[in-house]
Amino acid sequence: MKEFLLIGIGAGDPDYLTLQAIKAINRVDVFFVLDKRAETAALTRFRRQICEEFATDRPWRFVTLQDPVRDQSQGKYTSVVEAWHHARAILLEQAIENELEQGQCGALLLWGDPALYDSAMRLMEIIQTRGNLALNYRVIPGITSVQALVAGHRIPLNRIGESVHITTGRQLAQGFPEDLDAVLVMLDGELSYRKVMEEDMEIFWGAYLGTRDEILIAGPVNSVTPRIEQARQAAREEKGWIMDTYLLRRPRRSR
Amino acid sequence: MKEFLLIGIGAGDPDYLTLQAIKAINRVDVFFVLDKRAETAALTRFRRQICEEFATDRPWRFVTLQDPVRDQSQGKYTSVVEAWHHARAILLEQAIENELEQGQCGALLLWGDPALYDSAMRLMEIIQTRGNLALNYRVIPGITSVQALVAGHRIPLNRIGESVHITTGRQLAQGFPEDLDAVLVMLDGELSYRKVMEEDMEIFWGAYLGTRDEILIAGPVNSVTPRIEQARQAAREEKGWIMDTYLLRRPRRSR
Ligand SMILES: C[S@@+](CC[C@H](N)C(=O)[O-])C[C@H]1O[C@@H](n2cnc3c(N)ncnc32)[C@H](O)[C@@H]1O
Ligand SMILES: C[S@@+](CC[C@H](N)C(=O)[O-])C[C@H]1O[C@@H](n2cnc3c(N)ncnc32)[C@H](O)[C@@H]1O
Repeated sequence: MKEFLLIGIGAGDPDYLTLQAIKAINRVDVFFVLDKRAETAALTRFRRQICEEFATDRPWRFVTLQDPVRDQSQGKYTSVVEAWHHARAILLEQAIENELEQGQCGALLLWGDPALYDSAMRLMEIIQTRGNLALNYRVIPGITSVQALVAGHRIPLNRIGESVHITTGRQLAQGFPEDLDAVLVMLDGELSYRKVMEEDMEIFWGAYLGTRDEILIAGPVNSVTPRIEQARQAAREEKGWIMDTYLLRRPRRSR
Repeated sequence: MKEFLLIGIGAGDPDYLTLQAIKAINRVDVFFVLDKRAETAALTRFRRQICEEFATDRPWRFVTLQDPVRDQSQGKYTSVVEAWHHARAILLEQAIENELEQGQCGALLLWGDPALYDSAMRLMEIIQTRGNLALNYRVIPGITSVQALVAGHRIPLNRIGESVHITTGRQLAQGFPEDLDAVLVMLDGELSYRKVMEEDMEIFWGAYLGTRDEILIAGPVNSVTPRIEQARQAAREEKGWIMDTYLLRRPRRSR
């Protein structure tokens, strides 16, 4: 049996690490890294720093895998993503096969929480279904970018009695969900809220949350949108990539 | 100026504490506790243990406030809750006034994350609006029970492209939200999903997550509901209170 840990490391600040994550990190023999685009070079560096600072109890090594290219050209969104996950799962399976010995412990260090818009658990499921590898895996939660956003703005995720709705830029572009007063948007390459925003909405926006480059902007959508666009553009030009998320909400209707 | 920290301590396991929370705890002179019902005696004990174990850098003390009674008899839900928050805010304001000196740091240790179904940030807002007290406050995120639930069951919060929707038992009882395939339910005193469940739904249920008493049950709603009811009833009788949450979902529709 090989052991495998999906460790949430929080979304930006090394101080988001939990004691549970630190204990887990200290049981790992091999950290696997699926390296994606230019933007993730910084994230890979961050992971390595965490190992160097916190994985002090035993020797460990880093194995970097070249992430398969995602074929965006054809098929429905879900099928494209599924095919890509399948390719990643096989890659990871082979790496675990070759690089991890019986009785050893492998891990992926996952940005934020492994359960929120992250494919690692699906990779584990695919590997288990394929059945080539006897793998025992566990999940360690981490502070998400959503939590970093609202802590930074000092606002609750929900107003009294309200639901919390977390969605993607892609879904938001199809319309602000009916019957909801607030949404939290992630994975939005293009500030999609501009397509659905209403006069009296407020926005709480944040980029590079938890890091030294953190930017927080909040206010009525109409007046702050130009500032957000500008900050986003400038930051993206400077660093070559951006990570941002926001809460968009209507004024409270009385219930 | 007085400083005040709203510190998320995670939802059950002391190892959910982040390094940021531990650093924050070590700057606190006075921990305030709003003690509610019988069920919270255990939670208050947990908070005290955390202070005893982690607040090692300086002397500190605990100030327990008797929580005002919530008048459930009259008015709309939102107004009742608002009135109750107002009473709590005044109580806390007076305690900060009397128990905390200028330049000192006070804190509330909040279960899970301070941003998720917790009133502490609203109390701070009310105190700031009243304007009697010069208070500088910050929010430290913590691992929520939602994250503990899905990590325990090793499932992602969302399937591919899906939104994450967190709601209350009270709202769920009014119907499973249209256009959604999955909801996460909190604050549910009576397993409200039984009113809205559909034949082919799955449930991932958890109680006392992250603690030694953790219970996890998952499966098709039809077959596991009796087991959940039984486990819930037995645990509640034994401990006198229960804390549970669950993910309820439809089979995936193709998109
Ligand atoms: C693939 S998802 C992963 C989310 C991650 N698992 C979490 O728990 O936050 C990446 C998206 O998360 C958001 N994000 C992650 N980290 C962020 C940060 N530090 N600042 C702002 N947004 C962030 C962005 O919306 C980004 O598009
Ligand atoms: C007032 S809310 C506070 C939530 C908290 N701020 C958090 O981040 O989890 C309390 C609800 O959270 C859920 N909950 C909190 N801790 C839990 C635990 N350890 N196990 C199961 N459910 C829990 C229950 O649904 C409970 O009714």
